Amino acid sequence: MKQFMVINGPNLNRLGKREPAVYGHKTLEDLEGQLLEAARELGVGITCVQSNHEGRLIDAIHEAADQYSGIIINPGAFTHYSYAIRDAIASVDLPVIEVHISNVHTREEFRHHSVIAPVTKGQIVGLGLYGYVMALTALVKGED
Amino acid sequence: MKQFMVINGPNLNRLGKREPAVYGHKTLEDLEGQLLEAARELGVGITCVQSNHEGRLIDAIHEAADQYSGIIINPGAFTHYSYAIRDAIASVDLPVIEVHISNVHTREEFRHHSVIAPVTKGQIVGLGLYGYVMALTALVKGED
Amino acid sequence: MKQFMVINGPNLNRLGKREPAVYGHKTLEDLEGQLLEAARELGVGITCVQSNHEGRLIDAIHEAADQYSGIIINPGAFTHYSYAIRDAIASVDLPVIEVHISNVHTREEFRHHSVIAPVTKGQIVGLGLYGYVMALTALVKGED
Amino acid sequence: MKQFMVINGPNLNRLGKREPAVYGHKTLEDLEGQLLEAARELGVGITCVQSNHEGRLIDAIHEAADQYSGIIINPGAFTHYSYAIRDAIASVDLPVIEVHISNVHTREEFRHHSVIAPVTKGQIVGLGLYGYVMALTALVKGED
Amino acid sequence: MKQFMVINGPNLNRLGKREPAVYGHKTLEDLEGQLLEAARELGVGITCVQSNHEGRLIDAIHEAADQYSGIIINPGAFTHYSYAIRDAIASVDLPVIEVHISNVHTREEFRHHSVIAPVTKGQIVGLGLYGYVMALTALVKGED
Amino acid sequence: MKQFMVINGPNLNRLGKREPAVYGHKTLEDLEGQLLEAARELGVGITCVQSNHEGRLIDAIHEAADQYSGIIINPGAFTHYSYAIRDAIASVDLPVIEVHISNVHTREEFRHHSVIAPVTKGQIVGLGLYGYVMALTALVKGED
Amino acid sequence: MKQFMVINGPNLNRLGKREPAVYGHKTLEDLEGQLLEAARELGVGITCVQSNHEGRLIDAIHEAADQYSGIIINPGAFTHYSYAIRDAIASVDLPVIEVHISNVHTREEFRHHSVIAPVTKGQIVGLGLYGYVMALTALVKGED
Amino acid sequence: MKQFMVINGPNLNRLGKREPAVYGHKTLEDLEGQLLEAARELGVGITCVQSNHEGRLIDAIHEAADQYSGIIINPGAFTHYSYAIRDAIASVDLPVIEVHISNVHTREEFRHHSVIAPVTKGQIVGLGLYGYVMALTALVKGED
Amino acid sequence: MKQFMVINGPNLNRLGKREPAVYGHKTLEDLEGQLLEAARELGVGITCVQSNHEGRLIDAIHEAADQYSGIIINPGAFTHYSYAIRDAIASVDLPVIEVHISNVHTREEFRHHSVIAPVTKGQIVGLGLYGYVMALTALVKGED
Amino acid sequence: MKQFMVINGPNLNRLGKREPAVYGHKTLEDLEGQLLEAARELGVGITCVQSNHEGRLIDAIHEAADQYSGIIINPGAFTHYSYAIRDAIASVDLPVIEVHISNVHTREEFRHHSVIAPVTKGQIVGLGLYGYVMALTALVKGED
Amino acid sequence: MKQFMVINGPNLNRLGKREPAVYGHKTLEDLEGQLLEAARELGVGITCVQSNHEGRLIDAIHEAADQYSGIIINPGAFTHYSYAIRDAIASVDLPVIEVHISNVHTREEFRHHSVIAPVTKGQIVGLGLYGYVMALTALVKGED
Amino acid sequence: MKQFMVINGPNLNRLGKREPAVYGHKTLEDLEGQLLEAARELGVGITCVQSNHEGRLIDAIHEAADQYSGIIINPGAFTHYSYAIRDAIASVDLPVIEVHISNVHTREEFRHHSVIAPVTKGQIVGLGLYGYVMALTALVKGED
Repeated sequence: MKQFMVINGPNLNRLGKREPAVYGHKTLEDLEGQLLEAARELGVGITCVQSNHEGRLIDAIHEAADQYSGIIINPGAFTHYSYAIRDAIASVDLPVIEVHISNVHTREEFRHHSVIAPVTKGQIVGLGLYGYVMALTALVKGED
Repeated sequence: MKQFMVINGPNLNRLGKREPAVYGHKTLEDLEGQLLEAARELGVGITCVQSNHEGRLIDAIHEAADQYSGIIINPGAFTHYSYAIRDAIASVDLPVIEVHISNVHTREEFRHHSVIAPVTKGQIVGLGLYGYVMALTALVKGED
Repeated sequence: MKQFMVINGPNLNRLGKREPAVYGHKTLEDLEGQLLEAARELGVGITCVQSNHEGRLIDAIHEAADQYSGIIINPGAFTHYSYAIRDAIASVDLPVIEVHISNVHTREEFRHHSVIAPVTKGQIVGLGLYGYVMALTALVKGED
Repeated sequence: MKQFMVINGPNLNRLGKREPAVYGHKTLEDLEGQLLEAARELGVGITCVQSNHEGRLIDAIHEAADQYSGIIINPGAFTHYSYAIRDAIASVDLPVIEVHISNVHTREEFRHHSVIAPVTKGQIVGLGLYGYVMALTALVKGED
Repeated sequence: MKQFMVINGPNLNRLGKREPAVYGHKTLEDLEGQLLEAARELGVGITCVQSNHEGRLIDAIHEAADQYSGIIINPGAFTHYSYAIRDAIASVDLPVIEVHISNVHTREEFRHHSVIAPVTKGQIVGLGLYGYVMALTALVKGED
Repeated sequence: MKQFMVINGPNLNRLGKREPAVYGHKTLEDLEGQLLEAARELGVGITCVQSNHEGRLIDAIHEAADQYSGIIINPGAFTHYSYAIRDAIASVDLPVIEVHISNVHTREEFRHHSVIAPVTKGQIVGLGLYGYVMALTALVKGED
Repeated sequence: MKQFMVINGPNLNRLGKREPAVYGHKTLEDLEGQLLEAARELGVGITCVQSNHEGRLIDAIHEAADQYSGIIINPGAFTHYSYAIRDAIASVDLPVIEVHISNVHTREEFRHHSVIAPVTKGQIVGLGLYGYVMALTALVKGED
Repeated sequence: MKQFMVINGPNLNRLGKREPAVYGHKTLEDLEGQLLEAARELGVGITCVQSNHEGRLIDAIHEAADQYSGIIINPGAFTHYSYAIRDAIASVDLPVIEVHISNVHTREEFRHHSVIAPVTKGQIVGLGLYGYVMALTALVKGED
Repeated sequence: MKQFMVINGPNLNRLGKREPAVYGHKTLEDLEGQLLEAARELGVGITCVQSNHEGRLIDAIHEAADQYSGIIINPGAFTHYSYAIRDAIASVDLPVIEVHISNVHTREEFRHHSVIAPVTKGQIVGLGLYGYVMALTALVKGED
Repeated sequence: MKQFMVINGPNLNRLGKREPAVYGHKTLEDLEGQLLEAARELGVGITCVQSNHEGRLIDAIHEAADQYSGIIINPGAFTHYSYAIRDAIASVDLPVIEVHISNVHTREEFRHHSVIAPVTKGQIVGLGLYGYVMALTALVKGED
Repeated sequence: MKQFMVINGPNLNRLGKREPAVYGHKTLEDLEGQLLEAARELGVGITCVQSNHEGRLIDAIHEAADQYSGIIINPGAFTHYSYAIRDAIASVDLPVIEVHISNVHTREEFRHHSVIAPVTKGQIVGLGLYGYVMALTALVKGED
Repeated sequence: MKQFMVINGPNLNRLGKREPAVYGHKTLEDLEGQLLEAARELGVGITCVQSNHEGRLIDAIHEAADQYSGIIINPGAFTHYSYAIRDAIASVDLPVIEVHISNVHTREEFRHHSVIAPVTKGQIVGLGLYGYVMALTALVKGED
């Protein structure tokens, strides 16, 4: 069974508690439950990681290098400055989809630029938690 | 039956013939066929429009205003400068998803910025023709 | 009887329906009616053109070149990037007044800059539909 | 009878003497006379203030706060850097119209940007001394 | 007989009438006549297109894709912002030479940058109508 | 008894009347009263100056040069462009604390930069009228 | 008894040893002792955290979310790029005061900009270790 | 006898007291004395004005318009932002020489740009108080 | 017989040896031979100069001032920064055509800007060695 | 025996596996072995640290403060944004040499700027793993 | 007798012939004659150097290092980019005055910035050939 | 025996005399002697060139093209603007190492950017004269 890694970055552990007008009322646990169900339907396995530590996210990307078939990552605020995460993604030979829950282009200027995007396969932005399910579906059923 | 409009901007009529290393070998007809099939499965109707004329794209967005439930748009190169299309989208009260076939963030600098994104619900980028199917699915089944 | 051309650019056909908080509830027909009345009082004739097509607006400016005494133009979003309309205005030897319904300087950054303004006689900004009447009055009764 | 304040900023006391190719041959007295006549026709009163002192202009704006129905201001060169005048306008609850005699967009780069515009109701630019008359008319007869 | 397409963009229909100090007194018809004569001498055929509509120019480039041996294009003001025309050129596999009648580098800042140039074979700038004849000669007799 | 000068710049005379959502409902008199009380408790004297005239503020800073032990200044909008006030502060050998009532960093872009800050001892921002009391306390009891 | 969290970021564990010309000779222990004493006088409790790990600082902010009444934070160099800490502060509903020991505006260019400031209540800059005491006092006794 | 006006801007009244390492130990009185002596030798008269008020400097420039043969001006910090003084100089038809005591190009970035220079005849920078004497000499004996 | 000067700048002596993928395999001697032949056919004389020394190129331009009818110049990398060569061209009253062998607009960013272009009659870019022949033809047979 | 610390930042644990076209086939172990051998020849000791955690790198720098004679650091992607590592280096009084394996100036724009370089003694860039050996040699045998 | 070196940069050998509207009709010989006369009156010697070669100007500056008391330099277009001349001036311990004949601030943007100014004692700009005489006078009789 | 060329750019002939606080007290002769000794130990030959003339440095690079195995270059101030030297290096097929004696990143802003670096193999910065010896060692013994 193919395995995928789902990585959530800083402050996503506060999903549901944090700015619900922007991020909705569902928690990280809700999201991970929803993804597990989608994975079951798609016949694949997933491992979920969340950390507020940039280094931990890099370690997780490295761990995925050999035994996973792809990565779904929401790098949170690291999206905008972590060239170290960018290099980590570039250092593994896996398709990576970057997901953002809210439409970052309607928010502060600094959220408009992703240093991660150039090393990913693609991005899904602004489609809520459903965006993660879509990312998983695309990794399993989309085009190469 | 809910209706959705699928709008393709300039040069997408050359899909399959144009830079196949970037855009693949499938044609616009292939794409529209694939979308019709997906619409049938989702139980919705779609209308497909393609034009190289900015004004025609604006007219199409206006036409969708009253009788459609959402718009999928790939504005092609207009993505990067057509504030007129942006205003057209802002002038209709519909969810709009912006789709790009290739990962624009790995290409020329000017392709990194979308003047359309701030008035859309979300973006799907770099996931090939499958991105259109995902956009339709998200409009039909995703979160509000 | 002197003739003036009144040109409205993209999305102004949706006046009254489009973002009424910004543009008010009057329609394009209301505006054109109001202008016809003002023209009658001033003893001049007007021709009204609206299009979402940049090329059509350029054609209209060219048409005005020989038989009209001036142009009132609200280029909509083309204000901010259509150097082609700018060149069209520069190519005719007529006084042109640029009108904006809302105060563009309180809105998005991109609306603060007009590429058209340097080739016009002047601008009237933020004074609602009345701005068009003022523009016509200025062309008829103002200083050369 | 409604009262309006007409405020002219630095160097406008030299109207008629200063760069007549740009500003014409009429003096400040001519302008104020013309405005008084227009006010009489419109059935309103006006008070005219001119100063080369930024602080004096701010004081005048404050003085207008309670007993005037609107302000017409040509801030001269302060247009481009006086955030203090901007704050003064924002601190009073009155419609303010910004007037420029010449088309500032055809002149030096620094004249293209107004720090005042975002706190005004609108701007009239490039229509000569007649622009002041139009501003007064708009305050009295235009839309709210 | 080899065929070449000659495309003239917005406002070039006003050649001879428009700013003669910059563009000279010859009309578009003069230019096209001069080019036909040069084509005859070079033993090739040409098709001339002029439009103020960006979409029409894109359509013309697409039409050239299969049966023409090269394109001469003066995109007028579209030179400076039409990424859609740029993409159209990139989508056809033909040598394209960009021509400007006047030396754009001695004019306004915005005319110094061409978004078209990176996808053309070369540019001829500032050499008047003769520049078109040179472009045709280069396509027929120049190096690959 | 040590003397301190408290300088308030343009529009602060409208405190309480001006944008109360931003600046609160207390007036300049309330603020000065509150500061006098604090000064009494700290065993020091204060002199309060407010002016909308940049030159008057410079004069006040010069007056403080010899007989005062420090300056508290809220330069209002001059914060962002008055290099003349900056030079005045640099020309006296006194500790100066810059105070802003509101958190300027959550407001317009132009309010994020202070040309005064580099010649002051420190800044207190966003802590309301209490910020002045804190500034006085710091000058009297803080570290050198 | 109200509790406040005091968070010191990277390199502040070297206070007293690090660039004493800039930061003085007192150590982190001295600072924390001074704050404990001030807390006792104000009748509140404090918890002090220092870490060189961005993730640890984010965790601490999250920990404060429910049981603390406010946060005093000196983010050290993270001030200038940690959008993740900014998001963490925005995700908790507490007043936060940002403190800097030295006047950052007299130092390197990069120290002039804080990405944290827009989500804080206010900033105290350049007033030495006493700035922390002032921040605590403001949280306890200042205006809401 | 020809008359010249010598205008000193803000903070120059503190010459000798202000940052003597930069400006030397001579006072404004010393400077004016030195200039009077030079004027006597050159057989011309001078009037000296100093003010910290921008408006006063503008008034002085206007006063010089008719009865003076030239102006020597050190606008102090107004050099860098007073477009109002720039306009005042442009509004009078006199040769104006801008003087700076210190070499502004070795100081802070903001001092490198003069908004005044483009409307003056020339500048003398960094040559101390002697620069004023040279400016007067150049106005009397230099080339037109 | 009319004389023209052909000036080649730095590194063009390595033509044929230098980056042949960009510049082709022909040498400087080949180029000069080709030009001599073209000159003979056109009935004019040419003098060829190549130097890696900016000063030598300036001297050559000065030498052309009196006895030549025009200059063809490929300034090599000096194109992008030699304001001294620009001034040299401006100091002689001759038509000058700037030639670049490769399409500089598809290469590094710094090659997109020419400081020379504004003082030339025109530019021929990207058309290989044939561009020099075209430049000579244009000088002899083109429009004034 | 003198001790030196060798610090490798994020993703350098993937040396040999990561983009071998850029970084070669040798692993981190190979590098550390090579350095140990060089240290032995130079008669000094080294301690090697690698971490993907910014905080861990800062801790390591602090640890070196008292008992080491110098630091060799390859901060990986942190080079471009970690002002916290910069401050850590500035907080210890040791010579530090920054090493980059590849020539960062031929890669993406963001890799051209180092926020670390201004607080180091020097940099060795683009000379492969041998650059570390050179850095160690320079610390032991180079000039102070 | 004190010796001074007068250095003129590129294209100044064409003085009198080059753009006389900007630079006047006097030649370099006229200038040098005028300076010799002034030197005689001041009781000092001068050596005049002119070259279009940057390297020659640097050599001249080095030559002045030991036996001259100061340098007057008009670096021509090198003013705007020759960091090598800047370094040459910084490498000698002599007072240097930079002279420009025309007021560079009224000309092209690129002429507004001098890379030389920060290492000179001062600048004299826009005062014609008389500026050189003034520079010599200032070196001989001005303040240290 | 392998030959290497050592090229020193402008002002390096003043080494030892020029700003000794920055560059030390050793002269160019000392440096070249030190390098000759190092070459002897490494069993290679070196040729040393120094010039203040950009063209001479380009000629030297060309001379090295065929008979040398590598180049060590300190381009002095040309580092920051000489695209001609950059092109010269790109035109020869040799490993080139760029050396700077001082740590340019702690000096003026303009010294932080090298236009040469992208065409070199690597850079050694801030390690004094020893940096040249290291560069030679790296060329002889380092990795390809």
